[in-house]
This record gives sequence, structure tokens and C-alpha cells, in this order.
Amino acid sequence: MDTFARLESEVRGYCRGWPAVFHTAQGSHVTDENGRRYLDFFAGAGTLNYGHNNPELKRRLMDYLSSDAIVHSLDMYTTAKRDFLDRFNEVVLEPRGLDYKIQFPGPAGNHSVEAALKLARKYTGRESVVSFTNAFHGMTLGALAVTGNSMKRHGAGVPLGHGVAMPYDDYLDGRTPDFLLLDTMLDDSGSGLDKPAAVIVETVQGEGGINVATAEWLRGLADLCRRHEILLIVDDVQMGCGRTGGFFSFEEAGIEPDIVCLSKSLSGYGLPFAITLMRRELDVWEPGEHNGTFRGFNPAFVTAVGALEDYWTGEGMEKQTLAKGEQVERALNEIALAHPGAVDGVRGRGLAWGLVMSDPALAPRVCGEAFSRGLLMETSGPEGEVVKLLPPLTTSETELDRGLEIIAESVEAVRESVTV
Amino acid sequence: MDTFARLESEVRGYCRGWPAVFHTAQGSHVTDENGRRYLDFFAGAGTLNYGHNNPELKRRLMDYLSSDAIVHSLDMYTTAKRDFLDRFNEVVLEPRGLDYKIQFPGPAGNHSVEAALKLARKYTGRESVVSFTNAFHGMTLGALAVTGNSMKRHGAGVPLGHGVAMPYDDYLDGRTPDFLLLDTMLDDSGSGLDKPAAVIVETVQGEGGINVATAEWLRGLADLCRRHEILLIVDDVQMGCGRTGGFFSFEEAGIEPDIVCLSKSLSGYGLPFAITLMRRELDVWEPGEHNGTFRGFNPAFVTAVGALEDYWTGEGMEKQTLAKGEQVERALNEIALAHPGAVDGVRGRGLAWGLVMSDPALAPRVCGEAFSRGLLMETSGPEGEVVKLLPPLTTSETELDRGLEIIAESVEAVRESVTV
Amino acid sequence: MDTFARLESEVRGYCRGWPAVFHTAQGSHVTDENGRRYLDFFAGAGTLNYGHNNPELKRRLMDYLSSDAIVHSLDMYTTAKRDFLDRFNEVVLEPRGLDYKIQFPGPAGNHSVEAALKLARKYTGRESVVSFTNAFHGMTLGALAVTGNSMKRHGAGVPLGHGVAMPYDDYLDGRTPDFLLLDTMLDDSGSGLDKPAAVIVETVQGEGGINVATAEWLRGLADLCRRHEILLIVDDVQMGCGRTGGFFSFEEAGIEPDIVCLSKSLSGYGLPFAITLMRRELDVWEPGEHNGTFRGFNPAFVTAVGALEDYWTGEGMEKQTLAKGEQVERALNEIALAHPGAVDGVRGRGLAWGLVMSDPALAPRVCGEAFSRGLLMETSGPEGEVVKLLPPLTTSETELDRGLEIIAESVEAVRESVTV
Amino acid sequence: MDTFARLESEVRGYCRGWPAVFHTAQGSHVTDENGRRYLDFFAGAGTLNYGHNNPELKRRLMDYLSSDAIVHSLDMYTTAKRDFLDRFNEVVLEPRGLDYKIQFPGPAGNHSVEAALKLARKYTGRESVVSFTNAFHGMTLGALAVTGNSMKRHGAGVPLGHGVAMPYDDYLDGRTPDFLLLDTMLDDSGSGLDKPAAVIVETVQGEGGINVATAEWLRGLADLCRRHEILLIVDDVQMGCGRTGGFFSFEEAGIEPDIVCLSKSLSGYGLPFAITLMRRELDVWEPGEHNGTFRGFNPAFVTAVGALEDYWTGEGMEKQTLAKGEQVERALNEIALAHPGAVDGVRGRGLAWGLVMSDPALAPRVCGEAFSRGLLMETSGPEGEVVKLLPPLTTSETELDRGLEIIAESVEAVRESVTV
Repeated sequence: MDTFARLESEVRGYCRGWPAVFHTAQGSHVTDENGRRYLDFFAGAGTLNYGHNNPELKRRLMDYLSSDAIVHSLDMYTTAKRDFLDRFNEVVLEPRGLDYKIQFPGPAGNHSVEAALKLARKYTGRESVVSFTNAFHGMTLGALAVTGNSMKRHGAGVPLGHGVAMPYDDYLDGRTPDFLLLDTMLDDSGSGLDKPAAVIVETVQGEGGINVATAEWLRGLADLCRRHEILLIVDDVQMGCGRTGGFFSFEEAGIEPDIVCLSKSLSGYGLPFAITLMRRELDVWEPGEHNGTFRGFNPAFVTAVGALEDYWTGEGMEKQTLAKGEQVERALNEIALAHPGAVDGVRGRGLAWGLVMSDPALAPRVCGEAFSRGLLMETSGPEGEVVKLLPPLTTSETELDRGLEIIAESVEAVRESVTV
Repeated sequence: MDTFARLESEVRGYCRGWPAVFHTAQGSHVTDENGRRYLDFFAGAGTLNYGHNNPELKRRLMDYLSSDAIVHSLDMYTTAKRDFLDRFNEVVLEPRGLDYKIQFPGPAGNHSVEAALKLARKYTGRESVVSFTNAFHGMTLGALAVTGNSMKRHGAGVPLGHGVAMPYDDYLDGRTPDFLLLDTMLDDSGSGLDKPAAVIVETVQGEGGINVATAEWLRGLADLCRRHEILLIVDDVQMGCGRTGGFFSFEEAGIEPDIVCLSKSLSGYGLPFAITLMRRELDVWEPGEHNGTFRGFNPAFVTAVGALEDYWTGEGMEKQTLAKGEQVERALNEIALAHPGAVDGVRGRGLAWGLVMSDPALAPRVCGEAFSRGLLMETSGPEGEVVKLLPPLTTSETELDRGLEIIAESVEAVRESVTV
Repeated sequence: MDTFARLESEVRGYCRGWPAVFHTAQGSHVTDENGRRYLDFFAGAGTLNYGHNNPELKRRLMDYLSSDAIVHSLDMYTTAKRDFLDRFNEVVLEPRGLDYKIQFPGPAGNHSVEAALKLARKYTGRESVVSFTNAFHGMTLGALAVTGNSMKRHGAGVPLGHGVAMPYDDYLDGRTPDFLLLDTMLDDSGSGLDKPAAVIVETVQGEGGINVATAEWLRGLADLCRRHEILLIVDDVQMGCGRTGGFFSFEEAGIEPDIVCLSKSLSGYGLPFAITLMRRELDVWEPGEHNGTFRGFNPAFVTAVGALEDYWTGEGMEKQTLAKGEQVERALNEIALAHPGAVDGVRGRGLAWGLVMSDPALAPRVCGEAFSRGLLMETSGPEGEVVKLLPPLTTSETELDRGLEIIAESVEAVRESVTV
Repeated sequence: MDTFARLESEVRGYCRGWPAVFHTAQGSHVTDENGRRYLDFFAGAGTLNYGHNNPELKRRLMDYLSSDAIVHSLDMYTTAKRDFLDRFNEVVLEPRGLDYKIQFPGPAGNHSVEAALKLARKYTGRESVVSFTNAFHGMTLGALAVTGNSMKRHGAGVPLGHGVAMPYDDYLDGRTPDFLLLDTMLDDSGSGLDKPAAVIVETVQGEGGINVATAEWLRGLADLCRRHEILLIVDDVQMGCGRTGGFFSFEEAGIEPDIVCLSKSLSGYGLPFAITLMRRELDVWEPGEHNGTFRGFNPAFVTAVGALEDYWTGEGMEKQTLAKGEQVERALNEIALAHPGAVDGVRGRGLAWGLVMSDPALAPRVCGEAFSRGLLMETSGPEGEVVKLLPPLTTSETELDRGLEIIAESVEAVRESVTV
């Protein structure tokens, strides 16, 4: 690992908790160069909902590449892109009654967010955007301005403007009515809150610590936006593509955002890919007003279509994910019950779960114990106090059980150090 | 094409000048769904320096994918990443005496720029960054603030701060000494120019209209930065990876930037990939202070190593590119001579060339004629007045000749409409 | 009045509600050019706490001017300035145990605020400042950024940055614990609230609608600032100089702000004058780092000393103001009781009172009726829904009674139009 | 002076060079508390064009005050204000063919600048404002953003946005054509210079070092603004009211700015007073959109009318000032000739002059020697390298001679230390 220490910037992060050099991967497992196998409850931070090197998607990808079909095309028209547009519309949008137009803003989730923010500002003629406590929307300057983490914000090196953070669902432990502050400030021309162009929200905050907004809260937010003529942007980069059950994480709440950001598991194979969806009438872009070199990466169109066709033409995927989520929830609750001094609670939805440790120092230790037992998990939350589970949606029940067992053992292992 | 009109956002751009649906691609040619073949002097805006679907790189990519090697790994350690770090150091950095550390800032060029700007601000504790007239550094909010194009800047929807534009080489047609203004203002504590963290520069401005900075000007800039203790960032996203001859476009000038941005042709195969290089002592990042989902896309590491090994272990590539550049220059000069009323000049370096039309309306018409003759080229420059040639570096002399012939015919075709 | 319509900018405001040309003034009365006399419950928006043309102060002013003592001196040393410094220290600071240094930041309240904000940012090295809903701190760009009124904010013509508005005392009608949000966000490194340099607060919001912070809330705020190492700035421009009883409006709460802004009634005679007080250790200014042409207007030093010596050497002033305040409160409560459909409530402290009308349209009508009966009052609050009483502190009980009678008549007069 | 050291903030500046406590003042002289008399070539930094305690203005002021005429009136109508509006129009605007409306933006020059910037942004819908190297427009956040001095800018504690500095006349010593850069950038949609709302300029930069713009340059600037539909703001706070000869400093160039800022000597007596003049069609303010407590300080209206009537109804003032300016210029040139190693040059116009010292360390020493000989002068310029002469316009020729003699002696006195 000397190569990394010598040549890679100190900014590298995940590798510090997982001192192994990974080499191959299949389904819910990765293997390091020494042949050691790990169960992966990290899944590329939610990028690998269909597992590593999914065989069906791999077949499509290899076929596409071997035929010398076009790989890189910016925003030229290609057959692969047309196919993606048509299939995404048929499989995802139409069945849900969503009349969105699709923008290819660049290959990363933050590109989708940057495009969404630009569009909301252009459409409304306003600058300010409301985000929420512990939000994570990305590291580029526009996305960072609506992200909560102070260490990452400080990294900007310039003050971050045009954004204001409001309390997320249950942020104040139920001691204040939902949206009381935001609604009051928007109604009050003297509040000092400049009328925002948009509100940007995650339905479940992954990086923020698996904070789950209730459907009721999300409906309240959508209603507030409608009443105040503010655009609602759902950043579904991590929680979309089935992570919470339905294809979009906001379906359960029955809301229709004005703009939706998708990326991560969209390609289905870990290929960089992002789109921004917008209500048809919001599409006021000038040609070329936002662009980017990798917004037409055709292999990602191909595997994305594969993922849609293989997993989203029926309702099986959603049902399976919800069932597996219940399996996880049960096991985590048992762990919490068994270690009341070490575990503060269990939070989650679909297959995104968090085990909240009572002491932030415990969470990385649990993950460390899990790693030594062959399980990959990261921490999240402002203090890194949450052990975060994002297994591939295709993880089998047996694999889930095995992973949950390791978690139980890991919590047990760090338990003695806990002052109850 | 109804699919695109119905489902894709109005922001789409290139497709408007090229009404064809592309399907396959090989070397310097792309083929549309009707089987029509086009010679490609656009090359993914400089992303395909080694041609489309380069067979050697394809072989490496297919081998990697078929072996179920890990595809997506964020900033975990992988064997593919280690190989890239080692080979990039051995083939590129060491022979040039460059002691850089390497950051993986996300898959796109603007990620590299955003990371560079953050780092420069963090390291110096200053906010302002000097960029140049007609610069293009990307569409995310930080990169956009140092980009010149007013339509794209306006798309931000918020005022863009912390940047100041200075005249690029020859911007004022030699009527003022180089750096007179910038140097004077930096020396003058009353100038109103806040001392900048960094200067960011392209050695050749591609989007800006193929404006070529001389080696002397670049040395002057490096000297100015050194004297004023300002970091020098070279954005080599489009002009690096051999586009101007040497691997880095700044080699010719003999300067050593503090930070270098690379992307586009870095993967060699059109795969999204970017890195930020920084002088070792600048690596003051906290772990995770900048991150991103697709910063570890292993197939790109693999093809990037392929490109380095296949093209950059000797000096052949550089010599070939320079020779082909002379071939292009000669032909364009002939066209200019033949059409003095229509063509204002020829600019370029390596295999990046521009034919400056006397009337901005002519350039898209030349490109349109070229398209109808089977040649892809885009316009650039603030008014779109420059016909821009970025053929793959692997384009054969015969192909170059064929393309240059089409350009001559295309200029001829639009000529009658020109008022001389 | 044609002169005004023809030559004065449309920005003029108060004159629109009071179509009279004023000529002379004495105590609590002003007289227009037609000899009509008005009782003044506006008092220069709190600038004339000792009445118009206070005879004792006038004598000092005339003596000073007639002796050819220096009038304008920037920040040169003068005898008048020394006298002010000494007397302000002896009469105001020392008896209250306050070890402040005194800055002369320019002649207006917003100068005091601008200097306070600069100093807080310089001292802490942070940019953000927390202000409160319905705050008013002034119209210059720095002060405007911490002011709530949306019309005035919009007048900036640029987005206002580096400030965030939090709910003022009782803003959410008791439905959320005090400071719950601010405290939680400051404790949470992921909240998205950048750690602020300072909190700026008015103890009673005059322009905001006579919103009165309780002593308990102010103590809670001071405690929060201390715990989080954030500077506390009290903007006492309107509520200082005895308006609420004590010389400083924060005395009642027993807090010691880090920085205090004073202006308006400081000179005692309506002469432009402002100071910024700062805890001794905060005085990290470089010589000349903040300056201004009129920061040394000696006649204001002279009348300010007069006001201190005439009114603040004993406790009589404070007692009188509190007694008169009770007189006002009683009368307003009677009005409110008599017109439950028209009046929503009565708010105030010392001699700053507001009659909150149920319908914002009523307040200007009440003031209009009062004007026609010879009483000057302005409206305040975000919708202009509050009839605001700021009589000179020297107004006699009889004058107060007369004014309150007019108010009762005026409310009665507009009553019929109210839909109960 | 212990009082000042103990109680006044370290921000105090001028007093540090003049260790005396001033007490009385008359005409061009001030006297300290020990009875020492000083000739004043500082004149309140240009606030006392008619001398200290001008007897005629004093008489008007005393009459006004003694009659209990209204002193403080915000923007209510008063007889004194009407008189000022009428007389300013008759004496200043009409004879010069200027159809301006008049705003009372607050008592200080920076209030006039803040209002001008707001109005320009509101009218044009643009944010950016072009200012010039070494400009000084004030210390409030909006004005500071267009001010050059880096120490003062740094004092803001936040990055200053929405402004860009361009080279002032002769900034680059004639090595580049006037406005070449600005004009080229405005014509170029890719230049990175956002189209500005306005250009703000001083015709002579006082704080910047007595840099004099030629009439030709000013006309060029006005022409550039007209061509690009950018508003031209002349900040005549220091150079207006006759300092350069005519009432407005821009008259000589024959230009008509869109907006003009006046303050300092406007009241004629050192009373805080400022106005903003705007072309009639620019008056798009909402009532109350900009306000301020001391925008109606009636004594200043009265003395301002006095100054207009006493000095500006004929052409005598202008002629006298120009004649006295020649007297000063001759004497300074002699000093420069006599001390070629110590003095770099002489710059000025009207009665604003600068003696540019070859070594910045010399200028404060010259001022120190002058002080010890009974003459007050300040330094200016980015390095404080310019000895600045701003005597009252009413200074007699004999007084001027005496002061110039002292300057000659002072330069002589510091001369030996100069390395030629």
C-alpha cells in the first residue's frame, strides 16, 4: 500500500477504514488481492443496488462494447441514448403518471444537483435555496452550499451563499410543529428569509445519518412549496433507484417533485451516470446553457436500460426490498435491545438502515470489528455516530442474515468499553 | 428523433447541428443508424485522442470487465488504482521531474477544477482566483465562476463571485505589454484586486476559440505567480494527454504548475475520469474533505494505463502529433489564403486548430456543409466564429487530408454569401 | 409642495402620510408652515428622546457654536470629544460596571452596525452573523444583510450574504422552546449553519412592530452566545438612551453584550451621531481600518454631554419613563378592550409602544385620523400593521393623555369599516 | 491625552500624526487647547471648503437654531428642506442644464454611494459595478466593495463581491490605450466580465493619491458607458462643491453623469449632509426602499443654502479657486525641482494637490515636520507616499504662501535622510 501513501492525496477517505486492496467483486461480495472475501453492506454508497458485476447487465455491457457501438458522444443523438429515453419513460415515468423531461447534466450526482439548482433559479428568478440540516448534496460549489457538513463546507475556502438550512423532519425531537418556522418565515415579509427559488430535500438522509422523513412530513413539504410557489427538488441520488422500495423514494408519500436528481445506481453497474428530471414546463434551458464532457456515456445508457428491464417492469423488486428491509429492521432492533447502553436506536426505510451508537466513538469501532470479520460498512451522521447499512438490493436473505450476525458480534465486541 | 424532442431537455446542444442518430464508432469515424459514416474532427471535444473504441484499449477493458474485477470502488484501494498510480508516476511524472500527488476528485473535468480551486483557497487562505478572458473551466458553480462565456455564466442564476478575469495572451492585439495590468495591480495595495489564491489558465483555449498562449507568455505567467506567491493552476483537461504534442501542454514552455487538472482523454476510451495533480507540499486536504461517488471508476484506471503504455513510453506520439499538426496548419493556411474575405486567420498548436471566420455566421455554416459531406466539427469562440478541429491524434495522414479537403470544399460552398 | 414632487426622489416616505410642511418644533410639538401644531409621538423615530430643541441642550449648542469652537474634526483629538469620552465613561459606563472602549464609526446608526459587524468578523475570523426575524439594522449593504424587511432587502439589487435569520422571542407564539433551533444547529456540525461570528439583536424591535424580547429570553441568548463563543451585539440605536427606561435597554436583563451600537438620541438634539462600544479585548482594529468623514462632529459631543449631565446622573429619568410607560400601557389596553375586532393587542416597554391592528390596512388609517387630529405617529411591523408610539421621554403626562385620547378617537373613527 | 488612549478605540487614525487636542477654529486655522495655532491644509479631508466656522454660514445656522426651527425631521417635508431643494435647483442644476432628482440618502458620503449603487442595480437589473484602481468610496460594505485600499477591504471580514477594478487614467503610465481592456471585455461576450450596472469614478482620486483624470479620459469613459448602456456614477463627495474649480468636478469635461454623489462640503459648515443626484428617469425607487434616521438634518439644509447663495451665484468662486490652484502648483513645482531625489512629482487640479515623494516613508515625515511648524496636512496614496494639500477654498493667497513655505521647509528638513 506504499503506492497509495506515496502518490495519492491525503484526501482519500474510505480506504483508511478498510486497509485492503480490492481486486474482484461479484454480487454482494468483494475480494481483496490476497483472496480474502468481504460481504458488502456499503454497495458503493448506494451505487450498486443490483450488486457488483451483475451478470445480466454485464452481458449487455460486453455486447455493446464488443460491437464497437459508440461509447462517448456528449449530447449527440445515439441509438443507446434514444433507447434509454424511451425505456425510462415507459418503465418509470408513464406508469407513475410523471410528465418529466430528462436532462443529462454530467456523469455525477452533484452534476444533477448543480443543474437542478441552476434551473430552479433561472425559472423563478430567485437566488436562495432552502436545504435541510444534515443534508448532503455534493462537493461542487453549488451543491456544497446546500450541504450541511461543516468540515466539507469549510473545504470550499469561500463563504457558501444563497442557501439556508431548515430543520429536517424530527430534527428537534418533536418539540416544534413541522414547518412552523419555515412556513411562518415565508408568510412574513419581514422575516429576513429571502423567498427561495426552491427547497432541496432527501427523503432519507444517507450521509446525514439515515434520517428518515415521514410520508406525512414530505407531503407537508410539498404542500408548503405549492402554497408559496417554491420549486421542490428531491435529491434521489442515493435513495432513488429502488433503495427505499419504489423506484423513486418519494412515491410512498404520493408527492410529485418539480425536479428530481438521480445518479448512483441509475446505470446499475457502477458506471458514472446522472440525470435531472424536471416538470415539462420548467424546461426553460437555452441550448448548451449547461453542458459537460461526459453527459453522453453510452455504456451507462445500456446498463441502465438493462436494470430497468430486468428489475422494474413488475412490482417484484419493490416487494422484495421492503421484505428484506423488515428482515434487517428486526435484526437491528434485537441488537439494540441487547445493548441498550451502546445503541441509541435503529432508523431506516427500505434497505437503508442505521444503527445509532450512543457514543460516536463506537460506530467506527463497530465497523472496524465488522471489517475484521469480513463485512464492509461505513459510518454516517454528523459525528459519524451511525453504523450505516446499504446492502445491494439483490443481497440474498441468507447473506443479509450473515451480515446482521456479524454486526451483532461486532457490537458485542466493542461493548465492554461502553460506560452504561 | 421524436424521442429526443419529446423527452430530452432543451439544454441539448451538439445534436442540433448534427441531425443524425449515431450508432457505432471506430478510430476516427462514427456511423449513424442509417449506416452513414462520418469522419470525426471533434473527438468528443478532445476526449478521444486515441480514437473511438481503440482496439488495444478495448481489449484491456473487455479483459478487465470479463474477469469480474471490481468496477466501482469510490476511494477504496484497488489493484487497478494502484496500477494506475504507479504507471502514471513512472510514465508521466518521473520522466518529467514532477513530484506531484494525485487526487481523484470525481469523474469529470469540472470536478478536477473544483478540487483545484478548493485546495488553492485552503492552502493560501485567500478567496479570489484570477482567470482569463474566454476561459472555459466547467459548469459547476465553482468552475463556472472562472469561466468567461456570459450565456453560461448567466445560467448560474446567482452572481458568480471570488473570480476576476484578466486578458489572455494577445487579447488586446499586442497593444499592451503582457501582464502589465495584473502585475501592476498585484504590486499596488490600493488596486482593488484582492490578492488571489491562484491563477487558473489553459495553455490553449479550446472553447474560447483556439487561442494559443505562447511559451513566453506562459513563462511570464509562471514567473508572476512565483513572485507574488500565487498558485498556478493549469487546466489541462482539453489540451493535456498529448493534444498539443507533449503529454502536458505546458511542457513546451518549461513551466511547472502548482496544480494541474486532467480529464477528457485521460482514460483513453471516453470513460469518465479526472485527476488533480498538486505539488507534494500543497496536499493539505483532510481525509474526505472533498469526495464523490464516481472517483474510483476502475475500468477507467485500466484503459488509462493502457493509453500510457501504448502511447507514452517513447517520444513517438509527440513527434507524430506535431507532424500532423503541421499538415493541418499548411492546409488551413491554404484555405485562408484562398478565401481572404471569409477567413480571418488560422490558430492552433499540436492537433488543436481553429479556422477563424470573418463573420461569426459563417462558422456554423461551414460546419453544416462539412456535416453534409461527412465530417464532424464544432464551432468555438465567444461568437462561435471559429471552426474548431480536434481530430483524434491517431487520425491517419490520409484521413486528415480527406477532412481538410472537405473543409476546403465547405468554405468554398459558403463563400458566395460572403461580402468581401 | 410642488417643490418636493418635482425635485425630491420618489424614495421619500414619511412625508406621504403627513402632507404638511413643518417649520418649528419645541418639546413634544412640531408646527407646520401654516401654524398648525402637532403632538409628536414619533420623535424622529426615537431620535428626540429629550424633545425637539431641548432648551438646555440648545443653550450648550449655541454657546459652543458661538465660541467658534471646532465643529468638524474627523478623528483628531478635540476638547469636546475628550469631554464626551470622559463623561460618557463616568455617567454611563462606570456606574454600570462596563469596561467598553468607544469607537466613532460615522454619524449614523448603520455606521455603528457596519463597524460592529466588521469588528466581530475580524475578531473571530468568521463571516456569518445571526440576526432575527423582523430585525432592522440599517440600509447600508452590511447592515441590510441582517435586516428582515423584504422590500428593503430587495432594494440592495444584489443577494445579501453572510447572514441568517432566526426566530425572535415569541416569533412562533410559544409553540417551540426558545433557542431550540439555534442551539441545536450550533451543537450539530452537520446542521449547515456555519458557525457565526456574532448574533445581532434589538431588545425591542421598533421597525419590526414593537416586538419585545423578555429579559429571560435575552439572558438565554447571552448564555447561548457565551457557550458557543459567539459575540453578542446589541443594536441599541433606537431602544438605547433611555427609551425603555434604563440608559441601555439591555440593563434590565442584566446582560453585558460584547458590542453595543448607539445612535439616534445619543446627541440628544437630533444631531447625527453614533458610537460603537466594544469590550476592551475586542478592540483589535488597525488605525484607520474603518473611517468616515463625519465621525468627529463636535456639536454632537457637546449636546450628548448635556443630555448625560441633565438626565442621567440620577435615577429620575428611568423612573419617570417607566411610570409614563405604564400610563401609556393602561390607555392602550383600554382602547384594545373597547375595540376587540380592530385591535389585536398591545405591546411595548418603557416608552416604546405598539397597538397591533387586526387588519394591516387599519394601521395607516388610524395614523391618518390621528394626523388630522394633530398627532404624529408612524406604523411599523412587516405589514405596517402596528401603530407605533415613540413619544419624547420628556413628554408630560398631560401631553401623553392628550395623545392617547386622540388615538382612542382615531381607532373609533376607523372602526366602522372593520369586519369583526 | 490619556482619556483617548484609555477610552477611544485603536481605530482612531489622524490623531496619531497630530498629537494635539484641538479646541477652536476659524477660517483656515485651528487652535489647540494650549493656544497653539495651525494653518489647516487638510480642511476636514475636503469638508471645509469655506473654512472653519464661516461667519456668514454661522450666522444663518445660529439664526435657524435660535428660532426653534425644526432640527431633525427624517424625510418629512420642512421649509428648510424645500428651500434647499429650490435653491440647489436654481443655483446649481438649472444653470448647468442638469435635470436631476435629489435623494437624501443619509448624512454621510458613503450613504450617497450606497444609494447610488442600489439604484443603479435596481434600474439595470445587473449586479456588477466597475470601479477604478485606488478608488475610495467609503467604508460601509457596499461602498467598500468598490474601494481599492487592501487594508480597508480586508477590514470587511467577508469577501467583497459584485465589483471589479479597472485601471484609472494613466494607471499604466501610458503603456496601454485608455479603456482598451474595459471596452474590449464589454464587447466580448466571453470575456468573463459580467455586464456591469454602472461605473463609479472620482474625477480626482483624493485618498488614492491625488490622481487626476483628464477631461479627455472622462469623456472617453462617459462615451463608453453610453455605448454599452452602463450607468455612469461620479462620486463627487470630495472633489465636488468647488474643490476643483466648478461646483461639480466633472463640469470641465463636459460630461453629464447618470448619478452624482455629493457630501463633505455640501453643508458648507462641516455638518453631516449628503445627497444623491439621479437623472429624472432613473428615479425608480419605491417609497422607503432606502431610508435612514439622519437624512433630514435641517441645519445642514440651511448652511448649504447659505453656501450656495454666498459662493455660487456668480463665477467668482471658480475663478478664484483656479487662480489659487496655479499658485499652489507653481510653489510645489519649485519644491519638486529643488529636491529631485526626494520628490517624484506634483499632481493636482483646482485646490487639490499632491506632492509625490520618492520614498513612501518620507511623506509622513514631511507632514510631521509641517505639523511641528504649524501646518496640518495628511498623506494619501496606496503607500501613503503623497503629501496631500486640500486647503479651504477661502484660504487667502497669503495663507497659501505661508503654508507652501512651510512645506518647502519641511521637505528640506527631511531631505538629508534621502538617498538620492
